Amino acid sequence: MSTKRVPYTNLKSFIESAMVALKLPQNHAATVAEYMASADLQGSDGHGVIRLPQYTRRILAGGVNTSPNITIESERAATALINGDNGMGHVVMKFATELAIRKAKSSGMAWVGSRLSNHAGPASLYSRMALDHDMVGLYFAVGNANHLPAWGGLDMLLSTNPISVAVPTHKETPIVLDMATTVAAYGKVKAKAQKGEMMPEGWMIDFNGQPLLDPKRSEEGFLLPIGGYKGYGLSLIVGILAGTLNNAAMGRAVIDFNHDDSSVTNTGQAIAIIDPAAFGDTQAFKDRVDQLIGELKASKKMPGVERIWLPGEQSALKCVDYTRNGIPISEGLETQLNKVSEQLNIARLF
Amino acid sequence: MSTKRVPYTNLKSFIESAMVALKLPQNHAATVAEYMASADLQGSDGHGVIRLPQYTRRILAGGVNTSPNITIESERAATALINGDNGMGHVVMKFATELAIRKAKSSGMAWVGSRLSNHAGPASLYSRMALDHDMVGLYFAVGNANHLPAWGGLDMLLSTNPISVAVPTHKETPIVLDMATTVAAYGKVKAKAQKGEMMPEGWMIDFNGQPLLDPKRSEEGFLLPIGGYKGYGLSLIVGILAGTLNNAAMGRAVIDFNHDDSSVTNTGQAIAIIDPAAFGDTQAFKDRVDQLIGELKASKKMPGVERIWLPGEQSALKCVDYTRNGIPISEGLETQLNKVSEQLNIARLF
Repeated sequence: MSTKRVPYTNLKSFIESAMVALKLPQNHAATVAEYMASADLQGSDGHGVIRLPQYTRRILAGGVNTSPNITIESERAATALINGDNGMGHVVMKFATELAIRKAKSSGMAWVGSRLSNHAGPASLYSRMALDHDMVGLYFAVGNANHLPAWGGLDMLLSTNPISVAVPTHKETPIVLDMATTVAAYGKVKAKAQKGEMMPEGWMIDFNGQPLLDPKRSEEGFLLPIGGYKGYGLSLIVGILAGTLNNAAMGRAVIDFNHDDSSVTNTGQAIAIIDPAAFGDTQAFKDRVDQLIGELKASKKMPGVERIWLPGEQSALKCVDYTRNGIPISEGLETQLNKVSEQLNIARLF
Repeated sequence: MSTKRVPYTNLKSFIESAMVALKLPQNHAATVAEYMASADLQGSDGHGVIRLPQYTRRILAGGVNTSPNITIESERAATALINGDNGMGHVVMKFATELAIRKAKSSGMAWVGSRLSNHAGPASLYSRMALDHDMVGLYFAVGNANHLPAWGGLDMLLSTNPISVAVPTHKETPIVLDMATTVAAYGKVKAKAQKGEMMPEGWMIDFNGQPLLDPKRSEEGFLLPIGGYKGYGLSLIVGILAGTLNNAAMGRAVIDFNHDDSSVTNTGQAIAIIDPAAFGDTQAFKDRVDQLIGELKASKKMPGVERIWLPGEQSALKCVDYTRNGIPISEGLETQLNKVSEQLNIARLF
């Protein structure tokens, strides 16, 4: 199968046209397009334009409010709870993150939760927003489908509930951790299915505990948490912080948005922002992070290892490549996007 | 080897006598004793009285300031940086956590970091302090010896850097996650050595990548992070949040306190407290957590699994057992504690 490359601006314009055709206000359409295309630009290919067909289906089915009235439900000096009014998650979390950054500037740190939000793309989109302000960003979310049981259980009650943390640097590439609390994110399973590839052992097991390798059979098993019961605990805690605390969906209340286009998901997310200036000199902090990165990179290596990677570095390299050479779009995805074009009567991407 | 049981109050008094003999002020000695004995009471046997011989050695070597002047170096509405003046970590983190709880009551949440602190026992001691106030506690720390390389590296630049999160409930046992970002905590390796047992495969590997099973040979290899590169990323992030942000030791600057009794460790920790009342009704939140726990416990089980456990439940059961029947002290540990008694000229534990 051939893979074409598309410039970021073209991809962004294409998504924006789709969102406008789907009746989002112009500014919301622009935000969703910018965030989705940015996800692809940083190599988060499970969370970018690959989601457009699904978002389109959901919006047309009435599952998302295209003209939400996003409000602050409760607020203190360092906290807020955002009611997303069932709007697109990207728009809700842009609002939440910008508020958290403003609050952190005065209070030293802030924690802003969301409810009645929706899928918002890769976790690192929001933690990264702290970097422009020389701040540390932490993001937590409840995934939009349960693919994980309790440790020892079989009922799907937990999701891949991701964690992302972004740390500013001086000269080095910023550190950006973005990880599902499962060995693989479900978006990666979808991307494997899209590409027609098999999954490595360790990503999923079936209900008898046997390895599950075919991503098209993903309904017949579940994802494995990192570190066994530890990953189960982490997924649970992330879900409580991003979901239960905000009175958003968690556990049985989570809607499987792969099979349900119309129910309100009541997605919960949380963004925490820390201002290093509240703990000392920001420049000195960034220099200390640079020094730590230098120590790790200069480490003696295991036989066969060419380079020590820091979290976020591979994504930064992809961003450089894709900015210069365009974002890869597989033939399978191209076909799906062409269908969206026809459906919404907008110009094709290619 | 025989294992005796000792009542909590006896263990606490014994530790307190030791700390007074080591010239800690009475109130500091009482705090250290209470926190160390509480660690044993909750089954954190790698972080309780087992550490007394080492603490004694370090204090006698001048590595800890027995009369610290603990101060707030910088402060905003939701943040503070504590200078521990090289005091015992338990005393420093009690100060930090109490401050964070006060700040969270007004600001909705608070994040308090420490520098010039020391080893403070198990992470959950501090996250748990939030529970008495119906709040959520999150604790992060830099471990006091590097046992982990960068992913693909061989130089020991990272520690087991633990995470603990405590979540209040209504009728159910509170959820208390307390985990090293490695498959096993180093305290568990020490406890295995103490008991004369072998480690299971997967805890450590040697420098050639082969499984290391003998805890007495732990210097010949390193701990494995959970989820491979994900655990490496988590350990790094926890270290940055608890260490680098606070201008505490991280990376090469971490003192291996197993081999160095006199250098100032400049240990860094961080405690974050979230007040659920800032996000809605606290009682309703606790009921939602109860409901989630109920869903998880009622889950269909894997063949051979008798019960679904929540994080903190096994610890809570141990606490009930040890409160009623006393805290187990192995023969090996008893011998070591008797040596401390002689050294400090205090009454024996048994």
